[in-house]
Amino acid sequence: MSSRFGGIWPAMLTPLGEDGRVALTVLEQLTELFVSQGLGGLYVTGSTGQWPLFTVEERCLVVERVIRSAAGRIPVMVHVGAAATADAVTLARHAERAGAHAVSAVTPIYYAHSADAVFEYYREIGSATSLPFFVYHLSSVSPIAIGSREYTQRLLAVSNIAGMKITDRDLYTFGLIKAFTGDRLQLLSGADEVMCQAILCGAQGAIGTFYNLWGPACQRARAACAAGDVNAGQAFMLRFQCAIAAVLSSGSIWTFLRAAMRLKYGLEIGKPRPPLGAAECPWTDEDVRQLIEQVDSNP
Amino acid sequence: MSSRFGGIWPAMLTPLGEDGRVALTVLEQLTELFVSQGLGGLYVTGSTGQWPLFTVEERCLVVERVIRSAAGRIPVMVHVGAAATADAVTLARHAERAGAHAVSAVTPIYYAHSADAVFEYYREIGSATSLPFFVYHLSSVSPIAIGSREYTQRLLAVSNIAGMKITDRDLYTFGLIKAFTGDRLQLLSGADEVMCQAILCGAQGAIGTFYNLWGPACQRARAACAAGDVNAGQAFMLRFQCAIAAVLSSGSIWTFLRAAMRLKYGLEIGKPRPPLGAAECPWTDEDVRQLIEQVDSNP
Amino acid sequence: MSSRFGGIWPAMLTPLGEDGRVALTVLEQLTELFVSQGLGGLYVTGSTGQWPLFTVEERCLVVERVIRSAAGRIPVMVHVGAAATADAVTLARHAERAGAHAVSAVTPIYYAHSADAVFEYYREIGSATSLPFFVYHLSSVSPIAIGSREYTQRLLAVSNIAGMKITDRDLYTFGLIKAFTGDRLQLLSGADEVMCQAILCGAQGAIGTFYNLWGPACQRARAACAAGDVNAGQAFMLRFQCAIAAVLSSGSIWTFLRAAMRLKYGLEIGKPRPPLGAAECPWTDEDVRQLIEQVDSNP
Amino acid sequence: MSSRFGGIWPAMLTPLGEDGRVALTVLEQLTELFVSQGLGGLYVTGSTGQWPLFTVEERCLVVERVIRSAAGRIPVMVHVGAAATADAVTLARHAERAGAHAVSAVTPIYYAHSADAVFEYYREIGSATSLPFFVYHLSSVSPIAIGSREYTQRLLAVSNIAGMKITDRDLYTFGLIKAFTGDRLQLLSGADEVMCQAILCGAQGAIGTFYNLWGPACQRARAACAAGDVNAGQAFMLRFQCAIAAVLSSGSIWTFLRAAMRLKYGLEIGKPRPPLGAAECPWTDEDVRQLIEQVDSNP
Repeated sequence: MSSRFGGIWPAMLTPLGEDGRVALTVLEQLTELFVSQGLGGLYVTGSTGQWPLFTVEERCLVVERVIRSAAGRIPVMVHVGAAATADAVTLARHAERAGAHAVSAVTPIYYAHSADAVFEYYREIGSATSLPFFVYHLSSVSPIAIGSREYTQRLLAVSNIAGMKITDRDLYTFGLIKAFTGDRLQLLSGADEVMCQAILCGAQGAIGTFYNLWGPACQRARAACAAGDVNAGQAFMLRFQCAIAAVLSSGSIWTFLRAAMRLKYGLEIGKPRPPLGAAECPWTDEDVRQLIEQVDSNP
Repeated sequence: MSSRFGGIWPAMLTPLGEDGRVALTVLEQLTELFVSQGLGGLYVTGSTGQWPLFTVEERCLVVERVIRSAAGRIPVMVHVGAAATADAVTLARHAERAGAHAVSAVTPIYYAHSADAVFEYYREIGSATSLPFFVYHLSSVSPIAIGSREYTQRLLAVSNIAGMKITDRDLYTFGLIKAFTGDRLQLLSGADEVMCQAILCGAQGAIGTFYNLWGPACQRARAACAAGDVNAGQAFMLRFQCAIAAVLSSGSIWTFLRAAMRLKYGLEIGKPRPPLGAAECPWTDEDVRQLIEQVDSNP
Repeated sequence: MSSRFGGIWPAMLTPLGEDGRVALTVLEQLTELFVSQGLGGLYVTGSTGQWPLFTVEERCLVVERVIRSAAGRIPVMVHVGAAATADAVTLARHAERAGAHAVSAVTPIYYAHSADAVFEYYREIGSATSLPFFVYHLSSVSPIAIGSREYTQRLLAVSNIAGMKITDRDLYTFGLIKAFTGDRLQLLSGADEVMCQAILCGAQGAIGTFYNLWGPACQRARAACAAGDVNAGQAFMLRFQCAIAAVLSSGSIWTFLRAAMRLKYGLEIGKPRPPLGAAECPWTDEDVRQLIEQVDSNP
Repeated sequence: MSSRFGGIWPAMLTPLGEDGRVALTVLEQLTELFVSQGLGGLYVTGSTGQWPLFTVEERCLVVERVIRSAAGRIPVMVHVGAAATADAVTLARHAERAGAHAVSAVTPIYYAHSADAVFEYYREIGSATSLPFFVYHLSSVSPIAIGSREYTQRLLAVSNIAGMKITDRDLYTFGLIKAFTGDRLQLLSGADEVMCQAILCGAQGAIGTFYNLWGPACQRARAACAAGDVNAGQAFMLRFQCAIAAVLSSGSIWTFLRAAMRLKYGLEIGKPRPPLGAAECPWTDEDVRQLIEQVDSNP
């Protein structure tokens, strides 16, 4: 199995222009930024990339542009999950044609789907291409429980299954999946809040929102921790969790991300599509700068 | 305020053909059926109508056809909720042009939206038309809590707000909203399982999945209960809850609904779009018939 | 099966003196009050009666005094649930000797007990006496799910099982248990907030905190509703739910109950044992009076 | 502040004899075992020690015997939490007289206590002695949320507050408390399942059930991980989580612990008080041995 799906992967923001359409130039700049930072890979059109707010066509456009810009310099995993299985399959096939390195799909949303229905959805997506397939478990929306031996056995039977992106602050389940599957699955942690902790559960990489902003610092901290500098890992995680808490408790996460990407990188990612970002309060540049530095500093 | 939003409203199934496209002829027949049954109204493209699986264009097509078929003989409320506020606004305006009597929208989905973001979404949809607007609270997916005085005050400030569809088995919250808003809101219950119980919380009608199949029986039972025949209401609800439990615990709700609509009404509603209905087990005609009769019988 | 376990049963407050000990004289007065009000029965040393704060000996003392005062004029059901099965069995046997009409026990607390462990606990308590046994399901603390056919079958196999006190605002489960057990179990609702609604699920009576204060009004409303005056039931429930919400949201429920029992009945129930009642804010007599009247009034 | 509250602390089992009374001799042997293993300290009469099943007198007896046996060779933290604040205060004072090194208390149980009530309970216990006080947050029973700055500020104002035992698989909250309090609180992790992961959140030690059985292996793994051997930490945690899952999913945890302590150490801890351990299935010695070795092995 390929070992390339490791390190820090930003769950890429999808930049939008004033007109609400995808800002393709900024998308290319963002891709270039992450390549230049030497990050592990790009996770495109995921939750942070606002997939539920885009049409299938828009998602294809974003995927094509990122892959073309990346030009093989960084692996690209395309999130193809959708409300309809057929759309997910369409997106998976498109991703393969466009040159993606892997596809990923969140569990079906909104309804109380049975485990059987969820696995049928996985089966169809996994077998739609020859790409490695990563199931995306998002605990806040998933209709089914994971972490049992029965679950992992069913998962290993999915065509092209390569791993999981597990977004859950509870790491017991994460470790059990690793323990039950060993080297047969590549696990990436999706909860930024416990990025380094997940290493101890067998996470070989991390995919998340805040790596758009703090990718290099997170990459350094994660690498240091994985290499044995537990003190550095602890010190970083306390700063990082504090910063995340400040952003989340503000209720204005999208406004923060926009201001921070502009201040730190000079990139204008624009406003997200409502209801995302709706009715948020402004962040002062000073507060944004302080928070950026709080995480980036090496105390 | 209009008093027309009462009685039993099926959350209309959206019939699909073998090709997966909307079966417009069956949709018309279904509309005709509900008109002939003298039901209270039609709730179109809601959760039962599979809204998350359809494009905006498909939803418009369904709405137009139902309203045209209904031809003013029964009120039509159009669910316009969508992942993107802009789509919900587009759908609301379309519903008004198409001749709908009211619009409704579920709270924004998937993300952990703040109350401010939710109300901004309501504000945009409510003010997009001059139609009565009914907020659709679906407890299983809602990111915010309802039932406080603050919530109802904010709700009453939404443009064109006319009421709520409240889908929650916990009726304490329902009653509090009624108590806090009195005659200023029209409340409809969305949890079939507590249809008659919700009368005692001020529900003036009910919208739900199982009224596609058992509309007349539910309408009789609800009317009898509301008129004082508590024994009839109790006897019916015990039979009805039992039947719902049998369907839900089978894990094959869509297969049941399809077989039941065919057996009872000769209408072919087809398979839902996957992942809905995926990996379900078959129901025997005999089991379906028994369950239909269990609810329809007058013991 | 006896039909005596119906109507409105206060989950009796346990009055305490300045010294923190049970105020036996007030306990007798309270018993006399409920007898004079013609309530359905008394539920002694339940959650409202602060059972977790008392020793086994104190609980026996309370039970003896209430039964002696009641003198057969009103049925007495004794809550014998305890952290240790052995204590519950001791309390059940004592209740029988003291002349109780029934025993009841909450599911085991604190730990994540398995269904098997819960039913073994029930079995031991049920078979400890020849009294009718009522399982007390308190959804907020119960470690196991109820409402399946398997659950009700196991329940019906418990020695002397006579019924359940179900404290859950979700009435779907309540109705299923009634539907699955028919006349073999007597069901009493424990969530004051849905007192009348539970009639439609087959509740033959109600046990709860607020019947200490509003017993007669609740009894009238419940009887009227059960007899077919649905409008009266609805009007009462909206007032009652509002009053409950005012008390709960104040965060000072024990202070309210004490002030209200003093103002309305001249009975001094004292302060509960901390941590109950700790750090509560005072209620003004005026606010208490208004709330009392809000429920008692016949608009 | 003392630095002694680190390392691996078994949440001590309370051995019982055939007669159901505390087996004082085994209790002494258990104490001796943990001293000989060089563990970090002893947490007495906690959840694993079955505190809810014992009287105040029995708890005092256990505490006295452990402290006397420990004879200063290992620190002893006494859990004094109780349903009644007064009992907790009595137990705290007794613990101080008996020579305990610290006291600890779980949040008040059973009722939906307000944050104000919880802090008043902490205040009374903390100020009852001059010992360091450790709040015990058990997420499965706690009525209040932790992890906000407001929470930690209130906590730091509690008399003699020295730290927390945090039992929660979600480590985000844990890290935030550390980040908000720095060196002012000593944090110990209570979820065995994430023992090493909690190091990265600032845990300076761990208190838990399974350290009765696997104390030395856990101590070695934890120390290795804290010193930078992340691979060893990961490998151990995967084995440890697997073993915990095997025990928990068996539904027979008490039977396992009893058999395992007998097989590995020749200590007879007896059966717990029902409902704990009720209706459990037997473990074969072979299965128990395999599981013991699975964790103890150095692969």
